[in-house]
Amino acid sequence: MSELSRIGVALDNDLLKQFDSLIEERGYASRSEAFRDLIRAELVQKALQAPGTKVVGTITLVYDHHTRLLQDKLTDLQHQYHHAIQSTLHIHLDHDHCLEVIVAAGKFADMQTLANTLISIKGVKHGHAHWSTSGAKL
Amino acid sequence: MSELSRIGVALDNDLLKQFDSLIEERGYASRSEAFRDLIRAELVQKALQAPGTKVVGTITLVYDHHTRLLQDKLTDLQHQYHHAIQSTLHIHLDHDHCLEVIVAAGKFADMQTLANTLISIKGVKHGHAHWSTSGAKL
Amino acid sequence: MSELSRIGVALDNDLLKQFDSLIEERGYASRSEAFRDLIRAELVQKALQAPGTKVVGTITLVYDHHTRLLQDKLTDLQHQYHHAIQSTLHIHLDHDHCLEVIVAAGKFADMQTLANTLISIKGVKHGHAHWSTSGAKL
Amino acid sequence: MSELSRIGVALDNDLLKQFDSLIEERGYASRSEAFRDLIRAELVQKALQAPGTKVVGTITLVYDHHTRLLQDKLTDLQHQYHHAIQSTLHIHLDHDHCLEVIVAAGKFADMQTLANTLISIKGVKHGHAHWSTSGAKL
Repeated sequence: MSELSRIGVALDNDLLKQFDSLIEERGYASRSEAFRDLIRAELVQKALQAPGTKVVGTITLVYDHHTRLLQDKLTDLQHQYHHAIQSTLHIHLDHDHCLEVIVAAGKFADMQTLANTLISIKGVKHGHAHWSTSGAKL
Repeated sequence: MSELSRIGVALDNDLLKQFDSLIEERGYASRSEAFRDLIRAELVQKALQAPGTKVVGTITLVYDHHTRLLQDKLTDLQHQYHHAIQSTLHIHLDHDHCLEVIVAAGKFADMQTLANTLISIKGVKHGHAHWSTSGAKL
Repeated sequence: MSELSRIGVALDNDLLKQFDSLIEERGYASRSEAFRDLIRAELVQKALQAPGTKVVGTITLVYDHHTRLLQDKLTDLQHQYHHAIQSTLHIHLDHDHCLEVIVAAGKFADMQTLANTLISIKGVKHGHAHWSTSGAKL
Repeated sequence: MSELSRIGVALDNDLLKQFDSLIEERGYASRSEAFRDLIRAELVQKALQAPGTKVVGTITLVYDHHTRLLQDKLTDLQHQYHHAIQSTLHIHLDHDHCLEVIVAAGKFADMQTLANTLISIKGVKHGHAHWSTSGAKL
């Protein structure tokens, strides 16, 4: 972690009051932490506009494990990307459904391709990917 | 506008540097203004989670004016909501297509119904609604 | 408009029932129209990932017209982009606040710069831009 | 899985052509699967507008494990919600940073509170929650 700076921010009392009640509701211990989170979220947003950005994140899949050949396809595909995939977490949701979380790291464009390919497989009922830049940059 | 407060925010030098280059790129004249915008965007987001919130905003439609009865339907519907609709702006995009922007104000849930109804009409090719809370609360 | 195709789509009865109640709620007259809208929204999303895409859309600003020099800045900036800006709609929201809708067309990256610059001006309390590809492509 | 229906969808050749190239790019094996995914994503979106909806999903956190007391706070909080949290996956990103994925299930409003509380803790640099309805409803 680098050295700490302290900057002053001017804002209307009304806006400050609304901000304070928002951060209380969200559970922030200090205004500074809430500000830092707002900035970091914005920086991640911006970084994700460049396809070459190095990202790390999760792909979440909900699927019906009875679908023919689905598990084979998911496994094959993950092995093709074994350099990018760090780990996979599997939850048995109910009798039929699984939730699988795949943690992967790589270039944003490649990670999107991986996510699209997994989500488009027949039997995957809902999928979502979320990417962050690596911790060191934040 | 209410009285001005000045608060201190602590953050790492690295994060501050990244924030400064972000706001320069976005054209902000001061860190305070950028902070205020981040807060206000968050407050609008939060307000839009309650269906009873009073909102004001725009519904944007792209449509093919050759579609049979489309203009009649759009006009009829807008007249049903004439208390909510403040104004409508119309642009002739090309030989076939129009862009119409409808400015409306009312309860969030009602405004969503209005937007859904307009966007679902046959011939409307793309639609989008964006809502803000009224200026006085920000 | 090009010729019409008719394709078959297979889906579970349960999913179809949920889809039917969703489109009834949204006011769609037919399943085909709802499908077409889902596809078009996806195509617009995809097109907006390329900075060179030609887009048309709206920038919505809520601002306090008492802010010193704000109106001058907004006008100056809009004149710099007069080739891109098609039209502007202005609404007097309350004693202090205005809502301004700017319709603009151009390359996605340029339109984002225009939007960022307008939204970052002091006194603009909330801003939002929404872009669509031109009607002809949908 | 319920019985299968087959419905017809009418759309312009131009739109169909664009749809076909989109689904090829995304890796879909059939139009039907792509349509079903579009519908399911829309249904999940809609379900998440009601705070009482039962959801299952992931909270992803990137944090600096050197932050004082952070790990204790994260663990304490997760134990308070042990009925909701199914499992946690931990990745060592670099010398300083961890990525933690928490899989949780419960009422949407409660899950949002859990996510907000975790994300607001000092030292958590980036957080994101994504919720889906349970697989059985899709």
